[in-house]
Amino acid sequence: MKLPAGYRYSALYAGIRKTAKPDLALIVSDTPASAAAVFTTNRVQAAPVRLGRKHLAGSGGVARAVLVNAGNANCATRTGDRVALACCRAAARALGCRVTEVLPSSTGVIGVEMNASLITAALPALVEGLSAERFLDAADAILTTDLVRKVAVSTSKGYSVAGMTKGSGMIHPGMATTLAYVMTDAVVTPAALRRRLKRAVEHSYNRLSVDGDMSTNDTLLVLANGASGVKPKADEFQAALDEVCQSLAQQIARDGEGAQKFVEIEVTGGRDEAGAARIARAIANSPLVKTAIAGSDPNWGRILCAAGYAGVVFDPAQVDIWLQGVKVCRRGLAAPFDEAALTKKLDEKECLIRFRIAGSGKGAARFWTCDLTHGYIDINASYRT
Amino acid sequence: MKLPAGYRYSALYAGIRKTAKPDLALIVSDTPASAAAVFTTNRVQAAPVRLGRKHLAGSGGVARAVLVNAGNANCATRTGDRVALACCRAAARALGCRVTEVLPSSTGVIGVEMNASLITAALPALVEGLSAERFLDAADAILTTDLVRKVAVSTSKGYSVAGMTKGSGMIHPGMATTLAYVMTDAVVTPAALRRRLKRAVEHSYNRLSVDGDMSTNDTLLVLANGASGVKPKADEFQAALDEVCQSLAQQIARDGEGAQKFVEIEVTGGRDEAGAARIARAIANSPLVKTAIAGSDPNWGRILCAAGYAGVVFDPAQVDIWLQGVKVCRRGLAAPFDEAALTKKLDEKECLIRFRIAGSGKGAARFWTCDLTHGYIDINASYRT
Repeated sequence: MKLPAGYRYSALYAGIRKTAKPDLALIVSDTPASAAAVFTTNRVQAAPVRLGRKHLAGSGGVARAVLVNAGNANCATRTGDRVALACCRAAARALGCRVTEVLPSSTGVIGVEMNASLITAALPALVEGLSAERFLDAADAILTTDLVRKVAVSTSKGYSVAGMTKGSGMIHPGMATTLAYVMTDAVVTPAALRRRLKRAVEHSYNRLSVDGDMSTNDTLLVLANGASGVKPKADEFQAALDEVCQSLAQQIARDGEGAQKFVEIEVTGGRDEAGAARIARAIANSPLVKTAIAGSDPNWGRILCAAGYAGVVFDPAQVDIWLQGVKVCRRGLAAPFDEAALTKKLDEKECLIRFRIAGSGKGAARFWTCDLTHGYIDINASYRT
Repeated sequence: MKLPAGYRYSALYAGIRKTAKPDLALIVSDTPASAAAVFTTNRVQAAPVRLGRKHLAGSGGVARAVLVNAGNANCATRTGDRVALACCRAAARALGCRVTEVLPSSTGVIGVEMNASLITAALPALVEGLSAERFLDAADAILTTDLVRKVAVSTSKGYSVAGMTKGSGMIHPGMATTLAYVMTDAVVTPAALRRRLKRAVEHSYNRLSVDGDMSTNDTLLVLANGASGVKPKADEFQAALDEVCQSLAQQIARDGEGAQKFVEIEVTGGRDEAGAARIARAIANSPLVKTAIAGSDPNWGRILCAAGYAGVVFDPAQVDIWLQGVKVCRRGLAAPFDEAALTKKLDEKECLIRFRIAGSGKGAARFWTCDLTHGYIDINASYRT
């Protein structure tokens, strides 16, 4: 795993979350980096989302550091804006950069006042601990209900792209979902980075759903510090960024709250890509499809039904559906298949749903989700306790 | 319970569903009745939905009978249209009416061919069993995963309105959800009945959600045979119809698959009713809100968050939220409350969420749903087995 040059990472337990595992992470670029971000489109936005947007605008798309805490979303709180600003100021002082070059993020419970001094007091030790080797420590500190760490690295000609992300619930497409930080040492201007990020998000985080809930804190941030000296071609860099973002998004679906199975949905034959994506999303968000997958039940009628309410015009009589490569629906009707054999195939940890509209168009989309199980309910019925 | 005059009901087990409980119901008006219906807006429509729509158009909004089976949705099947028509023809013959005066409905598994002869063979006995007293038998025969029977009666000046409905999963607002049959002996023209039904649905079935899945078979049908000789004022009849439809919709939420709690969401202060309804719907559909209710967790941040992605413009700093009458959020921030006492109140079987936007407008909406529990997953992971 070749990490991009010119970045250092740190993490520690600052006492924000109840359990004593690291809850504060710092990512620093040795030199000012081009920065681009996508934030939640929720009308209720956490203080760090508002401040991060402001800092990016104020710095002209340049950043030195990302300061992230888990355990408290710093959202819907009286002191939210002051807390976020105080933390960025303390980090800027400790790092010797401008406050607008520090981007804040928070994740955790909504509506609980956050104690800024927990973070400002921890900053000296956090900065002290910075190291190019501690990428995984930072990746661990941003997790909440996640069961596993989520990182991805793509190495290209002379530079690399590395990302970390968190998230397993409150996951819904339509924005940059949850928190994700992607670092590269490629040379990319802020404007180009924004364009690349927008495209990458559309085919990764916006094709991901765990429960259909959209968070108030979602942030996906990319830093490009140019430390490799390599200026990649746009297409090539796009491919590397897509690869990292798609891997991160898929890792979130795999670790969805309570998930036992990873589900990939592939829709082809739509009139256009947007229509295919809407159908894929409706299937991915259907609790009936997700519980059927949990129970290894090849109940393809629910898949057809969910597609039917996606708000996309198509002829049901032209639809073929495959589960685990087995055709279960041909031209909108039941196809003969070995039920016992397919049920067994559905017990596997990976489930592939293919939905094809014959002769309709070239619109295609892939989408990732997970099954819906008792575990999701256990986690969310008592999240705050 | 005074049922409307001039209707007879029948039910029996025709062998369509696996368990030997009644699965075929017949509702007959002694004279041709004004008829109006709302059907699913799903692009995938079951054969009886298509045929019912055609019959209503063909008869000019007049009907004599409703033939309903449970156990098979007659959807996405090769023989669906032929089966639906054969059943209506057999009923018309047995009753001595036109085939377009028979409205068919089916509910159950999608994608399994239905055996018409099970129904046509049962029709003589079904017609033989018709009785004005067997309203509840018919109401029982249309149930699937429902745990309880769902009926409502409203008695007005000289006439009454009686309804039966089914449904506990695949419930989503945005259409007439699931199956519902409402009979009245008031004198109402077909055109007026359509207008009244449209309004009643908007404030009842379209304000109901169990799991966000929209069925392929949803049908809400109203018959008005005029047997009472009473021609009610429009407002008065609207109120009676609203009352019955709202009661039926609430009964569905109470009996939602796996539901332990009934949840009412009341939104006030929206710019308009449509906006208030969108906010209420987003809260009702949020799995995170529904699991928090299941766990008696006063996690109001999730309510605010769900409202935030409803696609409605509002200022979060103007929002107040009450749970069980206890203010938990004031002007977008945490309000002080006794957590232990509120948790206990949330253990009750009925949960009321009030969401108010201060000084914004007069748009208000009520919405009904239930909590999300292990039971929902148990039922749907193995629905077909």
